[in-house]
Amino acid sequence: MTSTPPPPADAAATVPALRVGMVGHAFMGAAHSHAWRTAGRFFDLPRRVEMAAVCGRDAASVRASAERYGWESCETDWRALVARPDIDVVDICTPGDSHAPIALAALAAGKHVLCEKPLANSVAEAEEMAGAAERARAAGVRSMVAFNYRRVPAMALARQLVADGRLGRIHQVRASYLQDWLVDPEFPLAWRLRKDRAGSGALGDLGAHSIDAAQYLTGRRIASVGALLETFVTERPLPASSSGLSGTASGERGAVTVDDAAVFTARFEGGAIGVFEATRFATGHKNAMRIEISGSLGSIAFDAESMNELAFHDRTEDAATAGFRRLLVTEPTHPYMDAWWPPGHLIGYEHSFTHQVRDFVTAVAEGTDPRPSFAEGLQVQRVLAAVESSAAALGVHIPVTS
Amino acid sequence: MTSTPPPPADAAATVPALRVGMVGHAFMGAAHSHAWRTAGRFFDLPRRVEMAAVCGRDAASVRASAERYGWESCETDWRALVARPDIDVVDICTPGDSHAPIALAALAAGKHVLCEKPLANSVAEAEEMAGAAERARAAGVRSMVAFNYRRVPAMALARQLVADGRLGRIHQVRASYLQDWLVDPEFPLAWRLRKDRAGSGALGDLGAHSIDAAQYLTGRRIASVGALLETFVTERPLPASSSGLSGTASGERGAVTVDDAAVFTARFEGGAIGVFEATRFATGHKNAMRIEISGSLGSIAFDAESMNELAFHDRTEDAATAGFRRLLVTEPTHPYMDAWWPPGHLIGYEHSFTHQVRDFVTAVAEGTDPRPSFAEGLQVQRVLAAVESSAAALGVHIPVTS
Amino acid sequence: MTSTPPPPADAAATVPALRVGMVGHAFMGAAHSHAWRTAGRFFDLPRRVEMAAVCGRDAASVRASAERYGWESCETDWRALVARPDIDVVDICTPGDSHAPIALAALAAGKHVLCEKPLANSVAEAEEMAGAAERARAAGVRSMVAFNYRRVPAMALARQLVADGRLGRIHQVRASYLQDWLVDPEFPLAWRLRKDRAGSGALGDLGAHSIDAAQYLTGRRIASVGALLETFVTERPLPASSSGLSGTASGERGAVTVDDAAVFTARFEGGAIGVFEATRFATGHKNAMRIEISGSLGSIAFDAESMNELAFHDRTEDAATAGFRRLLVTEPTHPYMDAWWPPGHLIGYEHSFTHQVRDFVTAVAEGTDPRPSFAEGLQVQRVLAAVESSAAALGVHIPVTS
Amino acid sequence: MTSTPPPPADAAATVPALRVGMVGHAFMGAAHSHAWRTAGRFFDLPRRVEMAAVCGRDAASVRASAERYGWESCETDWRALVARPDIDVVDICTPGDSHAPIALAALAAGKHVLCEKPLANSVAEAEEMAGAAERARAAGVRSMVAFNYRRVPAMALARQLVADGRLGRIHQVRASYLQDWLVDPEFPLAWRLRKDRAGSGALGDLGAHSIDAAQYLTGRRIASVGALLETFVTERPLPASSSGLSGTASGERGAVTVDDAAVFTARFEGGAIGVFEATRFATGHKNAMRIEISGSLGSIAFDAESMNELAFHDRTEDAATAGFRRLLVTEPTHPYMDAWWPPGHLIGYEHSFTHQVRDFVTAVAEGTDPRPSFAEGLQVQRVLAAVESSAAALGVHIPVTS
Repeated sequence: MTSTPPPPADAAATVPALRVGMVGHAFMGAAHSHAWRTAGRFFDLPRRVEMAAVCGRDAASVRASAERYGWESCETDWRALVARPDIDVVDICTPGDSHAPIALAALAAGKHVLCEKPLANSVAEAEEMAGAAERARAAGVRSMVAFNYRRVPAMALARQLVADGRLGRIHQVRASYLQDWLVDPEFPLAWRLRKDRAGSGALGDLGAHSIDAAQYLTGRRIASVGALLETFVTERPLPASSSGLSGTASGERGAVTVDDAAVFTARFEGGAIGVFEATRFATGHKNAMRIEISGSLGSIAFDAESMNELAFHDRTEDAATAGFRRLLVTEPTHPYMDAWWPPGHLIGYEHSFTHQVRDFVTAVAEGTDPRPSFAEGLQVQRVLAAVESSAAALGVHIPVTS
Repeated sequence: MTSTPPPPADAAATVPALRVGMVGHAFMGAAHSHAWRTAGRFFDLPRRVEMAAVCGRDAASVRASAERYGWESCETDWRALVARPDIDVVDICTPGDSHAPIALAALAAGKHVLCEKPLANSVAEAEEMAGAAERARAAGVRSMVAFNYRRVPAMALARQLVADGRLGRIHQVRASYLQDWLVDPEFPLAWRLRKDRAGSGALGDLGAHSIDAAQYLTGRRIASVGALLETFVTERPLPASSSGLSGTASGERGAVTVDDAAVFTARFEGGAIGVFEATRFATGHKNAMRIEISGSLGSIAFDAESMNELAFHDRTEDAATAGFRRLLVTEPTHPYMDAWWPPGHLIGYEHSFTHQVRDFVTAVAEGTDPRPSFAEGLQVQRVLAAVESSAAALGVHIPVTS
Repeated sequence: MTSTPPPPADAAATVPALRVGMVGHAFMGAAHSHAWRTAGRFFDLPRRVEMAAVCGRDAASVRASAERYGWESCETDWRALVARPDIDVVDICTPGDSHAPIALAALAAGKHVLCEKPLANSVAEAEEMAGAAERARAAGVRSMVAFNYRRVPAMALARQLVADGRLGRIHQVRASYLQDWLVDPEFPLAWRLRKDRAGSGALGDLGAHSIDAAQYLTGRRIASVGALLETFVTERPLPASSSGLSGTASGERGAVTVDDAAVFTARFEGGAIGVFEATRFATGHKNAMRIEISGSLGSIAFDAESMNELAFHDRTEDAATAGFRRLLVTEPTHPYMDAWWPPGHLIGYEHSFTHQVRDFVTAVAEGTDPRPSFAEGLQVQRVLAAVESSAAALGVHIPVTS
Repeated sequence: MTSTPPPPADAAATVPALRVGMVGHAFMGAAHSHAWRTAGRFFDLPRRVEMAAVCGRDAASVRASAERYGWESCETDWRALVARPDIDVVDICTPGDSHAPIALAALAAGKHVLCEKPLANSVAEAEEMAGAAERARAAGVRSMVAFNYRRVPAMALARQLVADGRLGRIHQVRASYLQDWLVDPEFPLAWRLRKDRAGSGALGDLGAHSIDAAQYLTGRRIASVGALLETFVTERPLPASSSGLSGTASGERGAVTVDDAAVFTARFEGGAIGVFEATRFATGHKNAMRIEISGSLGSIAFDAESMNELAFHDRTEDAATAGFRRLLVTEPTHPYMDAWWPPGHLIGYEHSFTHQVRDFVTAVAEGTDPRPSFAEGLQVQRVLAAVESSAAALGVHIPVTS
């Protein structure tokens, strides 16, 4: 037969492997798995990704996930995974309360770390993590927070436009992250509604994305905030079992200990101001992560529900033909898009994670620091903390500590 | 000849006249004039509107406006106009600093008063006006603040949907009023940029509309606010002459004494929260008066740049076919629209004023109280004052006094 | 008293009057009346418009319209109106079957004529009218067909862009005019559904607008067409009375003698091709008069349901930041818009008629030929006739083999 | 160590393998590869997909593709691939001129066949293929044409709505497929511009999708058509080499032998009419595969540039609150979407292929006939042929008289 095996041994050998262990295998785990599996199929990665192990507490469940998502092996204790000498990268996809211990152990073990957002459930934890990351960095160990929206091509394009000066001086930011899955008062008390697991509610889950996006796009940090937090439904049915299955409810009810919605105003370093909203009660909106930046020369607007598009207004155009342009961010000259389909063919949410893997692997291979760093994750944590302090103080604008 | 004069003397005689005198004849004066001239052509008014007199300080200018807009006579002193026995209604279209003296004099003279928004430049003035209106009311004298957006059919429809319970319990309001005419730092220091004339900047000019709209649509008053005000360009060229011509500039510069942008969070009576933004620096937006209300059963969204549309989401629909509906508010069953064109044919900004005249004249004729009342205008003023207090106090949330 | 009457006798005297008589006072009559009454209030017209007379067959009804719309006198016979020496302009707002006799008589009497579209119900009538217009023109008598969409500012801007070469060589036109008021099979057999009154159905009522718009915007005439006409509901209830009231039905039914929908392909002189659709069965669309032009350098798209907007794509932009721009056609530099409101404040359907009056009165005063001329109206009529011929020619459509 | 290998031997053994061989490895090959690799990661497939071999004429190129996309082995002659006993499925991703020989050979060898669209370059070829597929079917061999747009969730939802009677009687279809990559006259003469390779131009490449979509959504076949085809740029630079690299050009030019744009009207069995456009000259549109269906009770509209959305109008709603709904087709109750992300998180173009694999593999495993069948592909071919016949028949278009 004329058939030939495709990967010539020497070719594969020239690309060193990077062996990944992932902790957590729910929603984020599925997205990260797809990204690890897919990035090398569309991008020329400097490392051959090997999906070494996935870790979860329930043996049967994690075994099923491993098979489903294509991981070579399973672990039921993250300490075991972190201890494995064959693992180069630890990818943390658990709820926020375990980010710090896992990341600290992984960094101590010399593993590169990719950690889901928000970085931690408290500033103290985040400070410890950022400190550890900074020390590990000296030994060539890399760390990164998974603010995946930075890797949406439209967002990356928006950043380019700002960085290129196309918006001029930035005056204003308006950011909202609108979901509605909690409007039903019978939706059960999942872990994301418990402060001990999630740290906060809409604020940390959604608002953290908006804060990172605002600071990433403008290149400016938030200096102070004035906030309101609100919990519209204060008691919800407990989930039927401890397995965390959403959707099924027992007869008992428990207290919601996080915010349903967070709104705040902000001052940025350099003079811009902003207004932010994160909510799970915006009826009709499913994942409307929206941000708009107004500058002296132009403005941009993004909505994750139309994530392949970017609205761009160029104020230097003649007024008679100036208007918001709908950029379909699918051109080969757009960030990340030369790897995908012809213009006009959309990509999905999961591709932001694929791009994240590309950038993370590239940084590890090249010995550069991937971004956003743990230090950036810590700074977002400080903004979240200031929002909570402001809300607790009946709305006093609180400076973000630094 | 078979030609016959159309208005049979007796027919006209059966509809009593309502004689109007208007003070101020710039942008708002043009819009109000069109409304007085047009309302009776499309609606069956219970009074025959007569455009008796227009008043302005410059004799030549007001004469030209009278001819252009169709007023029977001119005045150069509003006191003279208020004193005329043949005038039934005084329509105040001047900057905010003269609202109080004109309205107080008109009410004292027994004239019905339609007053542009915001009601006044201070809470003290507004209180005096509301008190005078309340006293005059006992004598059958009517008064109304011209928050014209209430008369946009899409807004009136939104109010109906809320009042009919289609949105359920109101959780959140997001309101922004975005313009960009001040982004150019060489735009001259027009009266709207002077605190002594305008009271405030984007806050009173634009934010007052958003505040009224939010309270009108939800049926709930704002209880407290936490705010930031910002002036991005603090000095601007003085206008070339004292005539107030915008666009031409002298060599001298003066201080901008109002806000360019105002952002604030709010708590409503009854538990809803909101986020507000009013700005003249939102590059690319010309008149984006936007408001969205999220409730437990549905939500609505409006944008004045698409003012013939209302987005409506009905959460009681099956999830598979639920989505924001684009209502084209041009059906004969929509508020005000039976007077206009067949479905799908749009109406313009000026017809919010035409509808305002219809409602005002109807209330006067029927002896009912037109809304929004001066008391409502005062309450908006108190919200504006709370916003300014909060901003001045470095962002403390300030309760709205009552 | 200091009050002064505004229109100084001498000032008014310097602007000669133009006395208008209007025939027909239903939907179009209301729109034209508003335009005659309003144009001089916003534009500096070279003639002072006087609304001399309105004509309708029913004395009571026309008298009510005269009073409602502000006409000085009434006529019940158009011949009487045409004969009146005090009338300068005859404005024809009747169904198509009376356009020719009225226009011919008016032109013969030396009256300027503004005639609703389509120009006539047949090519023969239209030829006679165009011939008469051409002869009258020698005597300084002006005539114009009321394709009002040309006077929508967004459409006029689109024409400017094409004329300025911003679209390059025109390749393709896609035009559709979508309404849905006939989807209900119980909608009565109004005059627009009778071939003897209306000439055709969706084709002449809606398609004529699309044809004119396509030729106006491209500057090219349609050379040939291939068409389908369809009547989905062939019998409908007869209106309850001969008064033509739509909406009420008697028990009897009659045959629909016009098309419900017309679709056709077209070749333009110069090489462009196009596709057209006119329908009253496009469920959910109320007045979606849409047209898009694709050229070698750019393209434009318009939809009357968002009539203050024009989409514009400039292919000379860098691909990374090129996209359809949403132009809000409310800038003072946009056609007609310096007369209206500040940027971002919309105008309505009726303003297209106000602009039409401005242009017609200006042409009459200046002794130039207003456009579209009767000759242009005739050419549209020829396209309509070719569409009907093509649809009637059996075998034009190629069956799909099976 | 506690690490355990995830795929228990017995578990994998219970799911039989399905071994796939793919011919062609350019754009479509990349999309299909991703689908074969991914379907089992998100869906519970009844067969374990094994990517056995990829075939291409250039050995080095196909080897690189195999490695990139994850195929086990390579072939340089499709006859060798078809002959391999370890291959169960042949997936044809080549230009249209080789569809027939490959499919006929594969069916003769008892392989299931998935064939890219259009099925063939001529009706004769398609008839032979459909006949072969029908004969093979008796032996349990399955075949399917890859009209992937049927597997876009929004399209599948649209079909459900029509099938459920939510649109009532179908009156009209408007379908356009708009791209613009040929507007540049220097774009080289790629294989898609050569009739011998591609069969036709925009018609077969894009129009075939629209035809299949229209027939799939309505459940009705096109009975007759009337058409225009146009080639705006008749000569283009020849590609620099025979390797088919687009983008590079030699100095020589060759004749474009296919259409740049195709427009046609259509009659459907059952009384509906339609209008179609397929073009590569629609400046500003990248992949606007649009289709709208108007029925007596409702209508739907789809645009592939917003492929996660479906517009739906329900005419049974009260007119005051009826409007096109923007359905974000990301709910777990939407077709295919329970496998993906939470509501509001988009999927991309390639997942239409992933869904196609799911449906094809399921049909093969269950012994049912996947759709669209080769017979359906043949019927689309007949429509394409009728379009070409109509366009070739001079005199079909009726000249506009002058």
